[in-house]
Amino acid sequence: MTDRPAPAAPTSDPTAVPTVRLDLDGDLVDLTRALCDLPSVSGDERAIADAVEEALRAYPHLEVLRDGDAVVARTSTGRPTRVVVAGHLDTVPIADNLPTHVVGEGVHAEIWGRGTVDMKAGVAVQLALAAELATPTHDVTWVFYDHEEVAADLNGLGRLSREHPDWLAADFAVLCEPTAGGLEGGCNGTMRLEVRLEGVAAHSARAWVGRNAVHAAGEVLRRLEEYEPRSVEVDGLVYRESLNAVLISGGTAANVIPDACVVTINYRFAPSTSVEQAEAHVRELLDGYDVVVVDAAPGARPGLDDPAARDFAAAVLAVTGGVPAPKYGWTDVARFSAMGIPAVNFGPGDPLLAHKADERCPVSQIAVSHLALRAWLTA
Amino acid sequence: MTDRPAPAAPTSDPTAVPTVRLDLDGDLVDLTRALCDLPSVSGDERAIADAVEEALRAYPHLEVLRDGDAVVARTSTGRPTRVVVAGHLDTVPIADNLPTHVVGEGVHAEIWGRGTVDMKAGVAVQLALAAELATPTHDVTWVFYDHEEVAADLNGLGRLSREHPDWLAADFAVLCEPTAGGLEGGCNGTMRLEVRLEGVAAHSARAWVGRNAVHAAGEVLRRLEEYEPRSVEVDGLVYRESLNAVLISGGTAANVIPDACVVTINYRFAPSTSVEQAEAHVRELLDGYDVVVVDAAPGARPGLDDPAARDFAAAVLAVTGGVPAPKYGWTDVARFSAMGIPAVNFGPGDPLLAHKADERCPVSQIAVSHLALRAWLTA
Repeated sequence: MTDRPAPAAPTSDPTAVPTVRLDLDGDLVDLTRALCDLPSVSGDERAIADAVEEALRAYPHLEVLRDGDAVVARTSTGRPTRVVVAGHLDTVPIADNLPTHVVGEGVHAEIWGRGTVDMKAGVAVQLALAAELATPTHDVTWVFYDHEEVAADLNGLGRLSREHPDWLAADFAVLCEPTAGGLEGGCNGTMRLEVRLEGVAAHSARAWVGRNAVHAAGEVLRRLEEYEPRSVEVDGLVYRESLNAVLISGGTAANVIPDACVVTINYRFAPSTSVEQAEAHVRELLDGYDVVVVDAAPGARPGLDDPAARDFAAAVLAVTGGVPAPKYGWTDVARFSAMGIPAVNFGPGDPLLAHKADERCPVSQIAVSHLALRAWLTA
Repeated sequence: MTDRPAPAAPTSDPTAVPTVRLDLDGDLVDLTRALCDLPSVSGDERAIADAVEEALRAYPHLEVLRDGDAVVARTSTGRPTRVVVAGHLDTVPIADNLPTHVVGEGVHAEIWGRGTVDMKAGVAVQLALAAELATPTHDVTWVFYDHEEVAADLNGLGRLSREHPDWLAADFAVLCEPTAGGLEGGCNGTMRLEVRLEGVAAHSARAWVGRNAVHAAGEVLRRLEEYEPRSVEVDGLVYRESLNAVLISGGTAANVIPDACVVTINYRFAPSTSVEQAEAHVRELLDGYDVVVVDAAPGARPGLDDPAARDFAAAVLAVTGGVPAPKYGWTDVARFSAMGIPAVNFGPGDPLLAHKADERCPVSQIAVSHLALRAWLTA
């Protein structure tokens, strides 16, 4: 916009995009809402990353680093242990559910809107503690990253682990994904497979000349329906598995015997099971069929037998009064796990409301999460 | 093209499209090839209809009628009986298989190319006999129609039956669709149904929260696979039925438990079974499921107990040496059947080669079909 006078900018850098100033020392509800109301759909995180970076640079106890739209801020007080507390800045597309609004009062108050659960309330807790805690009991690396809600190869945490692994070095990690304020350890692995059934095409008026590939899928579906998913205890948590046909497609026209049918299967397997073991398990169940693994990601053990994790669990649970539970969905804790860093999920918001049009987060969960993390880092 | 001099036209009408002249008194192979080599994909039948009309108008024993791209030519010698001999002028799109060529010699010769089977060889036999037989033993209405290979509502024979039913009035009809020179009676009916399965969507990492609609399709496919199709004798011919899943589609994404799955079924049922009976039969097999009939067309009884049909069968089979067989695919004989006119299929060419890239017709079958029809109409 060089042909018009520049608007009054909040920064002295004339090329900077004007940003909202985030108040990290103020009210957590206001901070959560300010984060939600900034544009931040995956791929459009520039403004929110700029706002986060600018706000953190105001605190001299933090060293602030930037890579693309990921921001890292860390203390260096010489503690013997370092922990990562991480969250992503992006959201799925809005569904006519912004700007945020608050419904109810006091302990019943909830913030409604896209991102309140997944995961701006968690990011608000991170930012407030990053600003406040100049001398935490562990040195802390606060990580805010981009592109979590889209294809895995775009993931900002993955990019940091490849390009700046030293930025993520730590003894333990907390991912502030929504867990309704409880502690969820590790995550199941996930694998996508295709069962490809072949037949012989024929005119449907002379079906006996052909062989029906869709009919052949019946036995595959029957085995899946009869299958009893396992529940597997790992490090004291019980992981419930899932094995499902998620897509099916077959046939070419209403007057042709189908010569092909593809059943896509999703297997969520316990973190004690390797990708190879998971594949072997599905192949055994579907013995005799053409099974192809399309993609797979191992799970993450809860790591609750690690001393750092045990301390975290004790500190958090003293505040929340809950017990650790397994995480079923695949989350970025598996990226820490792959780097050899024990990691857990802990954050405000009901994960079942993530990505929903009626996404909303109880204010009380934000407060409790803040208290619990603060207790751990000041104990 | 009013801005350029008109080319020398083979007709005195300056607005007519120049056409190929068809020689109805010459060699059947040449006539078949000339018909194939004219443009005639469904919707583009103008040139071939013009050529057929012009050729037939040369014979004073024929009254020639025209409706769109359908041509009707009939004798009126005062015979007590009238028969229709019908064929369609259009083909499915070419597959790099035109112009025609002849492979082999003598009794092994075959004409290769689009339309040779479906059904220009049959049309050539019709045209040659229409030209030759000024006083057939039955009065004959020769019908050449458009749009057989496309949506039923465009079908030229259907249009004639609605707009000029008197043109089709007859005691018996022969449709010169390919039957490899054998006599095929009637046709099976056809019905398309959808089985709609519902589930409850859920994240595939928490499958137990949902209900899998694709898994539920397994039992539907199992019943279809176990089903033993019936064979039903009608008027002395045995009709083999088919009941098949022809399409299946379910699921929305690889991480979501499917909440819907649709199985499309095609049922080909014997001509003694009504549409209502066919529907009831499928509903009984799939009891407990949400079954919806999408469309249906009744079959046609072979009508071989009709005296005219019996005479035809006797005359034809004396030449071909074969026995009548059922027709499995739905053909336009069902349109005659619906008008109360017994009808059979009889024509050169293997129906399994229709619509194929290697479509080809034995010259010997053209000759035998010509002889058999000629014997019947001169006996």
